[in-house]
Amino acid sequence: MNHRLLAAAAALALTAPATAQQTPPAAPEIPSPGEIAAAAPAKDWVAIAPSDLLVMDLAPGANGKPRRVVIQLMPAPFSQGWIGNIRKLAAAHWWDGTSVNRVQDNYVVQWGDATEKKALPEGLATVQESEYVVSGRAFPVRVVLRRQDRKDAYADAAIPLLGWPIAMDKDRAWPVHCYGMVGVGRNMSPDTGSGAELYTVIGHAPRHLDRNIAVVGRVISGIEYLSSLPRGTGGLGFYETEAERVPIASIRIATDLPLAEQPRFEYLSTESDSFAKYADARANRRDPFFIKPAGGADICNIPVPVRAVR
Amino acid sequence: MNHRLLAAAAALALTAPATAQQTPPAAPEIPSPGEIAAAAPAKDWVAIAPSDLLVMDLAPGANGKPRRVVIQLMPAPFSQGWIGNIRKLAAAHWWDGTSVNRVQDNYVVQWGDATEKKALPEGLATVQESEYVVSGRAFPVRVVLRRQDRKDAYADAAIPLLGWPIAMDKDRAWPVHCYGMVGVGRNMSPDTGSGAELYTVIGHAPRHLDRNIAVVGRVISGIEYLSSLPRGTGGLGFYETEAERVPIASIRIATDLPLAEQPRFEYLSTESDSFAKYADARANRRDPFFIKPAGGADICNIPVPVRAVR
Repeated sequence: MNHRLLAAAAALALTAPATAQQTPPAAPEIPSPGEIAAAAPAKDWVAIAPSDLLVMDLAPGANGKPRRVVIQLMPAPFSQGWIGNIRKLAAAHWWDGTSVNRVQDNYVVQWGDATEKKALPEGLATVQESEYVVSGRAFPVRVVLRRQDRKDAYADAAIPLLGWPIAMDKDRAWPVHCYGMVGVGRNMSPDTGSGAELYTVIGHAPRHLDRNIAVVGRVISGIEYLSSLPRGTGGLGFYETEAERVPIASIRIATDLPLAEQPRFEYLSTESDSFAKYADARANRRDPFFIKPAGGADICNIPVPVRAVR
Repeated sequence: MNHRLLAAAAALALTAPATAQQTPPAAPEIPSPGEIAAAAPAKDWVAIAPSDLLVMDLAPGANGKPRRVVIQLMPAPFSQGWIGNIRKLAAAHWWDGTSVNRVQDNYVVQWGDATEKKALPEGLATVQESEYVVSGRAFPVRVVLRRQDRKDAYADAAIPLLGWPIAMDKDRAWPVHCYGMVGVGRNMSPDTGSGAELYTVIGHAPRHLDRNIAVVGRVISGIEYLSSLPRGTGGLGFYETEAERVPIASIRIATDLPLAEQPRFEYLSTESDSFAKYADARANRRDPFFIKPAGGADICNIPVPVRAVR
């Protein structure tokens, strides 16, 4: 996902007929953020363990082609109670035959059991609301706050850290709802959701959900199979008929797939020099298309580069 | 568009089977942002002149249903050079028979002449790059900076003002690339685009485009007909074949439609007490679903409520 994003910002240009006679200026040597990431040495890329990948196969679309969505689960210390449940649900093949039931524009796509009657596997944990955040002691909070070159509207600091978008104050840290992040649907408090009902963000970062819902991962491949689905016409974007729902063929942890079918991905270490250059370039675009560097970027406009390993 | 957004944030809840036996707590009396907007008195709503609405009719979809997208053009002093061109292009029926040519996930949908050969009408203005911003003297910048309760990663201040998301420093103000905003595709600088090539944002706010491209309006109805289109598989999300392109039947200024067909909309005045309450609620969700108010919100997470007039 992110790689296409990176390539993205270079041009909204279509040659405009009125100005086709103009000769574009010679391209300066300043690389785009995507070019910086692509040029990063192998040592700056971190392999994602297949045991941390959730592979969702939707039923084929109208054109008969497969629709595979790959989700990277968050590492400890974040959200591990829910993620343990998700591993159990996948091992039990619980999602097979469930569906995508809700697509709300500029908000979320949600999937799970539309009947709300399917029994959950035994042994799922009930996770406490306190688990929406982790202790700030696990993080170099003071260092981060000191280097707070980027302002955040929602927290004392929000930076890409350990491969993920993380917000924090001096006592706590928590994962951030950026585009493509995956969270756990829940009922009213004190319910925190089991992990059986999941959603991903398909619009502007709904950061008001941070610390109110568990964030458990992010879509790293195939989000277009979710984000381009027809919007639901019911309340909150729920599909109103069975026919509209998109069947889920299966959801598995990648290590439960045959070895040859296991997807392989890696992300650009957020602690690498390459990432620092990439993040600076996201905040200060000086590649040829741009005339005015922004001088800053919010956390969700600095997506962590992820790429498939071939 | 925004109205559905407002209704949105109330619940990611689907009743979770594991917790169905729990009785939800009695709902407090605190209204959601959407409820605040819906309850605003008539005097707080501002009618949008049909002469400021651009009506784009795509060819009917596979289900034969009409697909109408309504765009509100920005008022003076913003981007009027390009908007004058857009009025001329619509009057000349220039877009009729052109198409949506690019859909890039988490970025933009772009439309115009895929052949890049269609002659433009005579008399279009060539707008200067200096027009991406306006003088800050037109705005109460010092007042805004003083009340800067919300931090912005890209500007000294960014607030909803005169009905629009506007960023500013002490000398200049400019419109912001939020979800649904419409901008003018261009070639490399010093080209600024004519207005014939337009795009709308369908992902996290690409604020690095602010001050680099002209923003001319926002989609206020029907964005789902653009945001749910299949993503293009070519570079930058361009469709690779003619068959993938989505034909545009017509684009008109609403006043050129028969009176009975002219859409009517109004927006919640950003200078009203109702808007102040709405914005505060967006930044501090205390309606029943939420357990932790964010304490802030970025400009693009406070969309200006817009509603159809019946």
